[in-house]
Amino acid sequence: MMTYRKELWFHLPKRRGLINITESVQQAVNESGIREGLVLVNAMNISASVFINAVEKGLHDDFEVWLEKLAPELPYEQYKHNTEAEHNADAHLKRTIMGREAVVAITGGKLDFGTWEQLFYYEFDGMRDKHVLIKIIGE
Amino acid sequence: MMTYRKELWFHLPKRRGLINITESVQQAVNESGIREGLVLVNAMNISASVFINAVEKGLHDDFEVWLEKLAPELPYEQYKHNTEAEHNADAHLKRTIMGREAVVAITGGKLDFGTWEQLFYYEFDGMRDKHVLIKIIGE
Amino acid sequence: MMTYRKELWFHLPKRRGLINITESVQQAVNESGIREGLVLVNAMNISASVFINAVEKGLHDDFEVWLEKLAPELPYEQYKHNTEAEHNADAHLKRTIMGREAVVAITGGKLDFGTWEQLFYYEFDGMRDKHVLIKIIGE
Repeated sequence: MMTYRKELWFHLPKRRGLINITESVQQAVNESGIREGLVLVNAMNISASVFINAVEKGLHDDFEVWLEKLAPELPYEQYKHNTEAEHNADAHLKRTIMGREAVVAITGGKLDFGTWEQLFYYEFDGMRDKHVLIKIIGE
Repeated sequence: MMTYRKELWFHLPKRRGLINITESVQQAVNESGIREGLVLVNAMNISASVFINAVEKGLHDDFEVWLEKLAPELPYEQYKHNTEAEHNADAHLKRTIMGREAVVAITGGKLDFGTWEQLFYYEFDGMRDKHVLIKIIGE
Repeated sequence: MMTYRKELWFHLPKRRGLINITESVQQAVNESGIREGLVLVNAMNISASVFINAVEKGLHDDFEVWLEKLAPELPYEQYKHNTEAEHNADAHLKRTIMGREAVVAITGGKLDFGTWEQLFYYEFDGMRDKHVLIKIIGE
């Protein structure tokens, strides 16, 4: 059995936003030399998500509106987690809906995806350094 | 280490519905010959879910009502993703709540489940061919 | 390849509550002797969650208020799953939002976590015996 570990780092210049990390994860799979196995991709920060969906700007805008409806940022005072120093309670809730991690099969050295599946990092509390873990096991 | 890969295909004759795939996944585990390991079961389409809950018709009806409240199908115009050709934005959101994948332990050649755990495929945009990936690793 | 299996048991004296299980899972990793791999941690009951977020009492209170807004316990009659004997439909829905499982990388014999990541068991239908599965694979 082989394992491989890599981190991806981000520093989004705004509070929220999506980054397509599919190619970066495939590159890590290439580096690993692993042909059959599983790759775990997870946010290492608890106010961000890794999830799988389509590359479609309209849908990404829909996610933004929808998450803001289910877990609104404002007013900050509605959340106990928000204090004078922190205002990111909504980021923890949004990340809960979108998920922390994706586990993806590796087959023949490739991410074993359906036609439209793409891996995204979703930042909910940006303007700071954040990271994602890629851990691959297989052979 | 051994790996095994199989796809399940579906073509639901309506927009939404649940299919119990527990036996199909156990059958794939049997075919694999793997006795100890993990199985990843994920929707390969981004408007469908794989999730674990109970076999109980009342609860399944509750899921349907609840998802329609959190991510309503209508009106179509509320979502940017919906265009003249596509009306499935709600399917992407519903699948986000229910999840893309389940990872299940395999112990002694069996899905290592609690008493009531069952694996379901949840279709949110049916009337077309859709598929699920089963990837097993272990020994 | 090595595997290791362990169950954690809980009996919460109230309907809902959070338990930090990070140390228990790390202890299972220690017992396994596995240095590189993956650990699956999942609720074996379908009215409870395993998820990853921060140790922060205010945030935990926010989760409680938020989940009650998205999937209210009362009135019981709003859910078909609730009958004279059962009143836990909301527990199934809350668990769906928080998730069934977490998959965590093991690196150098440690849970490979970001600074604030901690593993929690979230009980939504307590006052009975419930359990969590830890399954580790690696070498």
